[in-house]
Formats: sequence, C-alpha cells, structure tokens
Amino acid sequence: MLRDCELSVTAFDWVPGFAQGLVRDLRVRWALEEAGIPYGVDLLNQGTQGGAANLARQPFGQVPSLRMGDGSMFESGAIVWRIAQESDVLLPSDAAGRDAALSWLFAALNTVEPPISMLAQLEIFSTDKEAATRLRPEIVDAIRLRLSALERELSGRDWLTDRFTVGDLMMAAVLRMVDRDMLGNFPAVSAYLDRCIDRPAFRKALADQLRPFAQNEARYASMMQ
Amino acid sequence: MLRDCELSVTAFDWVPGFAQGLVRDLRVRWALEEAGIPYGVDLLNQGTQGGAANLARQPFGQVPSLRMGDGSMFESGAIVWRIAQESDVLLPSDAAGRDAALSWLFAALNTVEPPISMLAQLEIFSTDKEAATRLRPEIVDAIRLRLSALERELSGRDWLTDRFTVGDLMMAAVLRMVDRDMLGNFPAVSAYLDRCIDRPAFRKALADQLRPFAQNEARYASMMQ
Repeated sequence: MLRDCELSVTAFDWVPGFAQGLVRDLRVRWALEEAGIPYGVDLLNQGTQGGAANLARQPFGQVPSLRMGDGSMFESGAIVWRIAQESDVLLPSDAAGRDAALSWLFAALNTVEPPISMLAQLEIFSTDKEAATRLRPEIVDAIRLRLSALERELSGRDWLTDRFTVGDLMMAAVLRMVDRDMLGNFPAVSAYLDRCIDRPAFRKALADQLRPFAQNEARYASMMQ
Repeated sequence: MLRDCELSVTAFDWVPGFAQGLVRDLRVRWALEEAGIPYGVDLLNQGTQGGAANLARQPFGQVPSLRMGDGSMFESGAIVWRIAQESDVLLPSDAAGRDAALSWLFAALNTVEPPISMLAQLEIFSTDKEAATRLRPEIVDAIRLRLSALERELSGRDWLTDRFTVGDLMMAAVLRMVDRDMLGNFPAVSAYLDRCIDRPAFRKALADQLRPFAQNEARYASMMQ
C-alpha cells in the first residue's frame, strides 16, 4: 500500500515560464492529493535531470519519478494509475467503471494529447519557425477533431463517465495545454475543464509545483543572462 | 475474468500499405495471443470507422475497441494493460515487477512513441511536404535521443526488466514504427526488437491482422482508382 510507504516525487526547482504549471509531476501531485496520500518532494536543480542520479530513477532523464519505500516507478501516467488503485476518489469499485476510467486515461494520453504536444513542440522548440508556422493549421485541425469528439461525449454530462475518476484527472491535465481561445469553441469541454481544475486537490497540487519556481526565479534569471 | 467472456476486437478489413501491420488492433491481438485468451474479430469496412456504430464503441472513431461479454473498452494501451492483469506471461506476480512493467508500458507510449508518431504524421499526412522535410532533422534528433536511452538500458539485457513483460510488448510495438536504417545505429535496441517480434504470439497476431488486407486488396484498389 502506497499510504504505508514513504513517498517522494521528483520535481524541478525551476522551469521556464512556458512550462510552469505543466511539468508532469503536477499530474502525480494531483492524484496524490485526490487520494489523500501524503508525499515528499525531491527537487532537482534545473539542468541536472540528465545526470547519473536522475537517470538511475528515470531512464530518459525526465521528471517525475516516484520513490515508494524501497521501490520506485517512473512515467506520470503509470504512477497516476498506480495511485488510483488505492483511492475510491479516483476509481469506482465496480469492474466496468474501472475499465472505463482506464480507457479514458489512455485516451487522454494517447489520443488527445499527441496533436496538442506536437503543436507545443513545434511552437516552442522548433528552430525553423517558418516551417513550423506553415504546419500549424493541419495540427490545429487534428486537435479540433479530438476536441469535437470530446464535446459530443461531454454534452449534458459533468464527467467522462458517471462520476469523477482518474480518467477525468488525466483528460483535464491534457486539456490545460490547449490555448483557451481554441477551447472556447467547445463549450462543454471548456466547462468540464473548469469543473476539473476547480477541485481543491488540483489547486493545492498546482500551488505546490509553482512555489519553488517563484522562490528560485531570480537565481535562474541571473544565470541565464 | 476475460477468459470467461466472449471477446471481440474491432479491426479494419483493409488499410493502405503504409498502415498494414501497424494498426493498433495488432497490439491487442498480440497481448491476447501471449495470454492464450481466444477472441473474435469485428471487421470494419474501411471508411465506416467514423459512423455511429463504431462511435458507440470508440468515441474518437478509431480502431481497436474490445467487446468483453456485456462490457467494452477502448484504447489499445488500456486494453493491453487490462489483458496483462490476467496473464503471467505478460506480468510477474510480485508488486515491484508489476510496477516496473507498468512504468515501461507508459514509457513506450508516452516517451518513445511521440516523436516517432510525429515523424510518421509529417511524412505521411502532411500536405506541406517542403515544410515537413525541413522539420525532419529535429524530429529525428528527438527519436535518436529516446533510442540512445533505450540502448543504454538494453545493453547486456534481453528485456527491459529481468523477464519479458507487457512493457516489452508495447515497446516493441512502438519500435516497429522506426525506420530500420535509423534503428541500425542502436544494436542493442535492434537485437531486442528482433527478439520481441520473433515470438510466436507476435507472428500469429501479425498474420491475423494482415490476412483480410490481402483478401480485400483488389476490391479497395479498384474503388480508389
């Protein structure tokens, strides 16, 4: 049982503005808050994530990983699903409800997120801004196609299934990456996202992720000049 | 228990050449074959996947979904993980081993696959071939970064953990999408992929996916002229 272990999540002590509130440890923090499971944080100095210490916990040098007593896990999707096993806030007890939540968790990560990530990748990281701009419309179309399907599913419903589950947590975490102007064309999806991120567990998780960024902002700003 | 249900997976009766052997029902078929769980197939006519019948099973109009007696699931990642719960070929019985397999399953889908899918997306579907070509090198770099991490993990090892698991199944399914020339620079990864796809369960699943494509090739070829 996770609640019998000492838990610690890796997170960054600072990230650039575009990534603040989006680093994947937020998803793990949110799940732990919903489940009411206490945890600690191992803050990594920005720039050290590819070093041997983090690679021993996370083979790709990413954040987050979760230390659980003697054990450990990586990949926020995996960790969030693992946490959900121990929380009746995140998963119902009936098999059909659990299967539906599992389907939606993967739909968030593997159907809805890919075009959203692709757009972010091109807009933020591409070194060929002109080529990236030319490809933008077709990627936006792919995002809209996913949002249209969600709009249909969510019309007249509060959650993806008949109650909040880990599937909603992950879908909301993904939808937060979409530009609010684009989301505005999908009223049921927008209202759903607002409903999800108004949860106290989300607000606490977000504040906890952001706190060290604010504390370390000045130090990193001076290093980057 | 899945093995007490009547199971049927959705699959296409035909897809274009570039997608043959890559449609995601293959991942589900492979898992079912490894687990020794019998299943049927609901073949969809190519072009009908966005219609009401499939949308009732798969909210995004995709393939696959799995009917399990009275219940159903969608998203190949979700279905494969669900199947793994009932197979000691796909998952060990100890908690640490199961947690590791879960981490690797998500690493395959959410860390290794995204740049690979992005490249396929640009090369196959982009309508702006010149812009897509200009962005290719930076996406190839992102793929190589993931493959380098895997090369490090797999050096001197047969599997991602101490035995074959559902994590290897999913990683191999993802690595099959990478160009063999690119993979050739990563000998441990290449040998690992060969080891995975030499499994009888994979070969049976692949043959079963491909069979209707061959049977229906002539009919679709004539429709597309």
